[in-house]
Amino acid sequence: MNTIEAIQSRRAIKQYDATHPMPQEVERQLLELAMLSPTAFNIQNWRFVIVKDMEVRKQIRAVSWDQAQVTDASILVVLCADLSSWEQNPARYWRNAPEPVQNFLVPAIAQYYSGKPQVQRDEAMRSCGMAGQTLMLAAKELGYDSCPMDGFDYDAVGKILSLPSDHVISFMIAIGKKTQDSWPRPGQLAYNEVVLENGF
Amino acid sequence: MNTIEAIQSRRAIKQYDATHPMPQEVERQLLELAMLSPTAFNIQNWRFVIVKDMEVRKQIRAVSWDQAQVTDASILVVLCADLSSWEQNPARYWRNAPEPVQNFLVPAIAQYYSGKPQVQRDEAMRSCGMAGQTLMLAAKELGYDSCPMDGFDYDAVGKILSLPSDHVISFMIAIGKKTQDSWPRPGQLAYNEVVLENGF
Repeated sequence: MNTIEAIQSRRAIKQYDATHPMPQEVERQLLELAMLSPTAFNIQNWRFVIVKDMEVRKQIRAVSWDQAQVTDASILVVLCADLSSWEQNPARYWRNAPEPVQNFLVPAIAQYYSGKPQVQRDEAMRSCGMAGQTLMLAAKELGYDSCPMDGFDYDAVGKILSLPSDHVISFMIAIGKKTQDSWPRPGQLAYNEVVLENGF
Repeated sequence: MNTIEAIQSRRAIKQYDATHPMPQEVERQLLELAMLSPTAFNIQNWRFVIVKDMEVRKQIRAVSWDQAQVTDASILVVLCADLSSWEQNPARYWRNAPEPVQNFLVPAIAQYYSGKPQVQRDEAMRSCGMAGQTLMLAAKELGYDSCPMDGFDYDAVGKILSLPSDHVISFMIAIGKKTQDSWPRPGQLAYNEVVLENGF
């Protein structure tokens, strides 16, 4: 399947075969591909929590409007981000780059994020968005479907996962073998409504 | 090129052939593919500003640390979002869905976003992140490279584009024909550092 076919055929799927376990090597491949998604300054701020324990899944489902895909999909990935990754020894993000590049970029990281909580949070959401789409398109390529979700109680899921106070949840993605197609795209906006030239 | 190859070979490219114009039909295809990216409640909150006017590009480059890709890439896409798309006649996002689905989902949209500016902003960043990765992977498939950017003065670019007050900029993506490869990935984190099981 080429990239364009994956983009065109990816839809949010809600019904999954609850008896299908994802092979460990497929799960690993999916997450390794997600880790190739870009992040600003290469800070790799995402943290992917794979929820396998069915008791934990049930707890999450209870605070996610009881949506079936939370427990029925083969895996549930909670995309989180470390808001302080920019200050966690940032030299390591550029350790293999030429020295002048390191000398320019590493100090720029703190300058960009330091004391700017909204900038840090925007980066968390943006990075997880990019990684999430990577995960969903890679899943499609590997014969799986997915459902991105932000319909859940963020504080409650944070507590269930023991989310550290300097981390945030961006969204969750359920991935599995679909048992039912999605409905046709329900109401897409026209090209000219969302694509503009040179400004508003 | 399959999806996995596109994910693996996509890198942030800074040097572009400034003489290569992207054919209009390729540009359209790229943006139409980006529009297939998922959004919560199908609110399609992204707004893609394609900057073609070279004078505008030069103004943006001047407030983007003078980065060459801003003017040298074939197209520059500024990924913006309408923070109030959730309340802009939301029934249209579900107009083709079965009536019970419409009746359940449309009222849920206002309930989710109303009076919650941080939730609206998170959605803007997340949606643009997903659409941006779609754009970059589709570009790769179509023989182009890209550079995601958030190293610029957001207020200044907002002014240049006459960004409405209820919109935000998420990031920019330069897309074009590369003239130079990127350096090797500069310092990737280990799998176990970013992938966790069942919680922190």
